[in-house]
Amino acid sequence: MIKGDMEKKRERAIKKVWDAINMHGGTTLLSTGITGDDARMARAAVEAGARLIEPNHPAVVLARGLYGAKDMHAAEAVRHKLPLYEMLKVISGVRSAVGEEIFITVGVPGGFTEKEPIILEDEDFYNIARAGADGLHTHKATLEDLEEWVAKAHKFGLLVDAYIAHPDDKHLLGIPARTPEEVGKVAQAMEQIGVDMIGLMTGMTYEGVAAGEIHPQVKERLEALVNSVKNVPTLAEGGINLTNYQAFKATGVNIIVVGTSFDHLAANAISDAVKQYLSLGE
Amino acid sequence: MIKGDMEKKRERAIKKVWDAINMHGGTTLLSTGITGDDARMARAAVEAGARLIEPNHPAVVLARGLYGAKDMHAAEAVRHKLPLYEMLKVISGVRSAVGEEIFITVGVPGGFTEKEPIILEDEDFYNIARAGADGLHTHKATLEDLEEWVAKAHKFGLLVDAYIAHPDDKHLLGIPARTPEEVGKVAQAMEQIGVDMIGLMTGMTYEGVAAGEIHPQVKERLEALVNSVKNVPTLAEGGINLTNYQAFKATGVNIIVVGTSFDHLAANAISDAVKQYLSLGE
Repeated sequence: MIKGDMEKKRERAIKKVWDAINMHGGTTLLSTGITGDDARMARAAVEAGARLIEPNHPAVVLARGLYGAKDMHAAEAVRHKLPLYEMLKVISGVRSAVGEEIFITVGVPGGFTEKEPIILEDEDFYNIARAGADGLHTHKATLEDLEEWVAKAHKFGLLVDAYIAHPDDKHLLGIPARTPEEVGKVAQAMEQIGVDMIGLMTGMTYEGVAAGEIHPQVKERLEALVNSVKNVPTLAEGGINLTNYQAFKATGVNIIVVGTSFDHLAANAISDAVKQYLSLGE
Repeated sequence: MIKGDMEKKRERAIKKVWDAINMHGGTTLLSTGITGDDARMARAAVEAGARLIEPNHPAVVLARGLYGAKDMHAAEAVRHKLPLYEMLKVISGVRSAVGEEIFITVGVPGGFTEKEPIILEDEDFYNIARAGADGLHTHKATLEDLEEWVAKAHKFGLLVDAYIAHPDDKHLLGIPARTPEEVGKVAQAMEQIGVDMIGLMTGMTYEGVAAGEIHPQVKERLEALVNSVKNVPTLAEGGINLTNYQAFKATGVNIIVVGTSFDHLAANAISDAVKQYLSLGE
């Protein structure tokens, strides 16, 4: 009764993603951080050309000053506390701000492997879709959980972008794979279970790498991903900024995810202005 | 039973304001717009030296993409729709982000002369104070309503900053006064009824004046305010940005209110970065 409708929704969504990739010469941007949850900044990103937007629950925790979290690391530890209905409001607000043409994938409590497991019901998936999401930004840490998640997401017309992590990452935000060979194998397994967009976590921490270059180990892993995935878009997430994004694009990855870098740019613009208004540090 | 406690709360609050004014050589900043409601940006403003922060309901409407509002003008027309509890969450989030030392004054539905009048009960004032507000950023349009508002605010230990407007302003955000003489008289009346900080609306619209100078008519009005107010801090709000703030400071006003200018700076920083990530307009 709804299977066909939901498939059509998913087709429209993946078309938005491929259109953006093609429009931007093979590599597009998934804009998150403050551009994912603040309607003012989401609009600024979209007006500048971004076509893919990602609100997520740790960023909302940080944006709203919740549970004492003062940076992204702290927010990751308490993100599961955010009630889903707060994310539903964020999704519908951002959708209203950016319009129907933009692809929105959303991180929700339970979509990541949380400190405290969160169970989402069918109704929750349906509400996420109805609030305006095209997809679910997913950071599950086992293939089994991811497979179940994908089935549920697809039932309600939602795409899934999911990630491969390094087992030593500070926050485990994906299926672990230690070597480039393992990255390739996990990527193929993810494609087989129906993941719609397959990404690699590329920052060991949110701070990313210091230099403008991509870390050789990260580069090798990302190339393994890009070479293993056949039919769906690939993503790189973590530590990407204005200094190193060209190195990331050079790997041929389809989507670069940028979040914390936007937060820092906005914060710096504000910090500079405040100092000027107060005639400090001029 | 609580009068003394509430007076102490108000004394602590006004001390925060005077300390900031003195610390910044006579003119300090009331930081609003995105720095008032986004905990990430409030923290950036405070770390750069801002001591006075203002979340307000029209900015929250805009930030959350609510009621179809896509700019500040549209947000002003629907701001009364925001439930007070959403502002309570914003206040406690921002307070948690910036700490106890910072002065927070807050715009709430009913604190301005709204398109649809909103009645606040005693419990609402108490909840605003308990959420972490030091004061109420007030845009009432008659002295009678303002007097009632001040009494209620003081009962619950909240300061009131209120404003004088020009009767031809696009949005009437204060007690109307057409001439500099009227500005002086209204300011004195406001001081008499116990307003704790007295401001002037200095932008005819949010766009402010084009040139770097202060409009002669605005300057005359602002000087009338500064010269009439004896014992409480004065404020200028509207159209203040990095081009004209020095002209505003030169009038001797104690507090310059900056909001939309911060939104634009953050949006521009994001817009420039998005274009660079997408290799557009380089």
